[in-house]
Amino acid sequence: MNKFELDTPALLIDFDKLENNLAAMQKIANDNGVKLRPHTKTHKTPYIAHKQMRAGARGVTVAKLGEAEVMNAAGLDDLLIAFPLQGAAKMERLLRLAERAAVRVSLDSFPVAQAISDAAAARGIKIPFYVEVDTGLHRVGLAPRQATRDFVRAATKLRGIEFIGLLTHAGQAYAAKTLDEIAALGKNEGALMVETAEMLRADGIATPEVSVGSTPTARFAAQVQGVTEIRPGTYVFYDTMQVHKFACVWDDCAQTVLFTVVAKHPDRLIFDGGSKTLSSDRGPDGAATFGTVVGFPHLEIYALSEEHAHVKIIGDGAAPNIGDKVQVIPNHACAVMNLHDQFIATRGDEAIGSFEIAARGKIR
Amino acid sequence: MNKFELDTPALLIDFDKLENNLAAMQKIANDNGVKLRPHTKTHKTPYIAHKQMRAGARGVTVAKLGEAEVMNAAGLDDLLIAFPLQGAAKMERLLRLAERAAVRVSLDSFPVAQAISDAAAARGIKIPFYVEVDTGLHRVGLAPRQATRDFVRAATKLRGIEFIGLLTHAGQAYAAKTLDEIAALGKNEGALMVETAEMLRADGIATPEVSVGSTPTARFAAQVQGVTEIRPGTYVFYDTMQVHKFACVWDDCAQTVLFTVVAKHPDRLIFDGGSKTLSSDRGPDGAATFGTVVGFPHLEIYALSEEHAHVKIIGDGAAPNIGDKVQVIPNHACAVMNLHDQFIATRGDEAIGSFEIAARGKIR
Repeated sequence: MNKFELDTPALLIDFDKLENNLAAMQKIANDNGVKLRPHTKTHKTPYIAHKQMRAGARGVTVAKLGEAEVMNAAGLDDLLIAFPLQGAAKMERLLRLAERAAVRVSLDSFPVAQAISDAAAARGIKIPFYVEVDTGLHRVGLAPRQATRDFVRAATKLRGIEFIGLLTHAGQAYAAKTLDEIAALGKNEGALMVETAEMLRADGIATPEVSVGSTPTARFAAQVQGVTEIRPGTYVFYDTMQVHKFACVWDDCAQTVLFTVVAKHPDRLIFDGGSKTLSSDRGPDGAATFGTVVGFPHLEIYALSEEHAHVKIIGDGAAPNIGDKVQVIPNHACAVMNLHDQFIATRGDEAIGSFEIAARGKIR
Repeated sequence: MNKFELDTPALLIDFDKLENNLAAMQKIANDNGVKLRPHTKTHKTPYIAHKQMRAGARGVTVAKLGEAEVMNAAGLDDLLIAFPLQGAAKMERLLRLAERAAVRVSLDSFPVAQAISDAAAARGIKIPFYVEVDTGLHRVGLAPRQATRDFVRAATKLRGIEFIGLLTHAGQAYAAKTLDEIAALGKNEGALMVETAEMLRADGIATPEVSVGSTPTARFAAQVQGVTEIRPGTYVFYDTMQVHKFACVWDDCAQTVLFTVVAKHPDRLIFDGGSKTLSSDRGPDGAATFGTVVGFPHLEIYALSEEHAHVKIIGDGAAPNIGDKVQVIPNHACAVMNLHDQFIATRGDEAIGSFEIAARGKIR
């Protein structure tokens, strides 16, 4: 079926673009001699995770235990849960998962380290862990150098967890304005991590992994000697935000939402989906619009209701009519994926299949 | 189980507050002699729709055909689809639904009116329709008075649809700053609608329904003589935005998300859920924060990552520790409901059951 014959709204993933994106990021990893452990929070779809593995990825990253369980149930068996897990229910699920997959975690505090260690030790196993370092995002993570070294020294004494290295996410790159700035942040991210890892090694603490990377910084951080792993997520689809951060060009964007025009006024249109389809994510920059209308540069999505996109017609370019279909590149691919139960795969204009977004909504 | 023992994040609905909210809005409708046809896009949950019906509602409103199908499958049989339906696939589904439920639609253009009429006439039935009037939101809808009258005159000639009245949504109230302003908008909404209905009646066009109402304006619009129906949605739960629009007080807010603190720094905390749990909806006012932490007025959710809430500690009030649980009243209840597959019902501190949000993600 031609994709423009689909009922709308419909979430479309262009598999040709997707596969190009996977290959290009894998080449960056290979060329720099680092492992690619992509973050599956973007697509939440086991089928795409398997594509990443076949392209050369060495395990995957997830944000939540629930995502790890879905990926494992679909055959993925090397999983990093990059989130500080808390609470008895999660400890039990983590240990169950560790019985059937290679599971590693990241953490940055004693309460979390102690809880995981106690639970694992009681079961007679060790959970491998990275220590998360804050290289500038100021979200989770310890300050690089001394603060991280002091924590690692103490955490390596815990019996139920096994230190395997350092991890960071330079999400501050999303606030950068120029590519030079992003490159500098990526290099700095890598350099701070390698320096801290060297301090640990000088202390006699084996530090095999130095794991970095957001989609914008990955290609720069990967070049830093001593980095061993990159974990970009959004590169699978890219989106409006990534174009603005110079991570890709418009033609790389593999994720679109197909809408129908349902109302037309002299100065504006209404599409048949809003924040429940595109998300109200403006990104860290606070974008003025809510996505990019493909092929209509003079249409501007200036507001979203829950089920309506409000679209301004700028100047006198041609505007579609009621009943016409349009494709929109969302602001933030990850947020959009989490709103939809399925996506339609396309090649060119042809719809070639429907895939369940199996880890959607796995908030725990 | 005590709700604070639940694994997190968890979406909680306080049934005592919910039932108070349902009764209070029903009383407003009854006292003013208007029908209440609540919008189920807020809760997307058949169980709550049935509660609304038992409290006295006369049918329900939905935003999407997919929501109507879910509600009908759960036993709701009087449904208004308040959206301009487009496309052959939707016509087929609409007619199927009309075979098993009383379905009415709203529309505001000839392409939509003609398509529904043609499809229904071919099946030998008539679909009842409201004409949507734009009383100031400038989303969908025709201008009141002449523009609406001209359209209705022509649309009533179509054989497959049956005119039953006028409908509007005064969503512009969400941009109002004072309760006086909201009251004036509600009164104006009602007055414009009644005036336009009177013009139609003077033309000999039977206009039984005059349907209005957002949650903030419902109680004011309901007082206007000649209004027959109100369609608020968010009043079931309320939220931070509704408190700021004077529609309720904090204690009325029935929807919260339970989080665990997973990181603590001197000046800030991290909770274990972000935009994929709370949504990045700031509301039409562009709120500076992403929800309200219950019992901690000096904690401010200043940013959301996908799975992290970034929380500032203002001043020197007590802050919870890693592992502690906190409840957050979201900015926008409807957006949050659409992110979750289930909610946990509570009475007081007790969790009393889990309910599927069956119409979540029904974007078509």
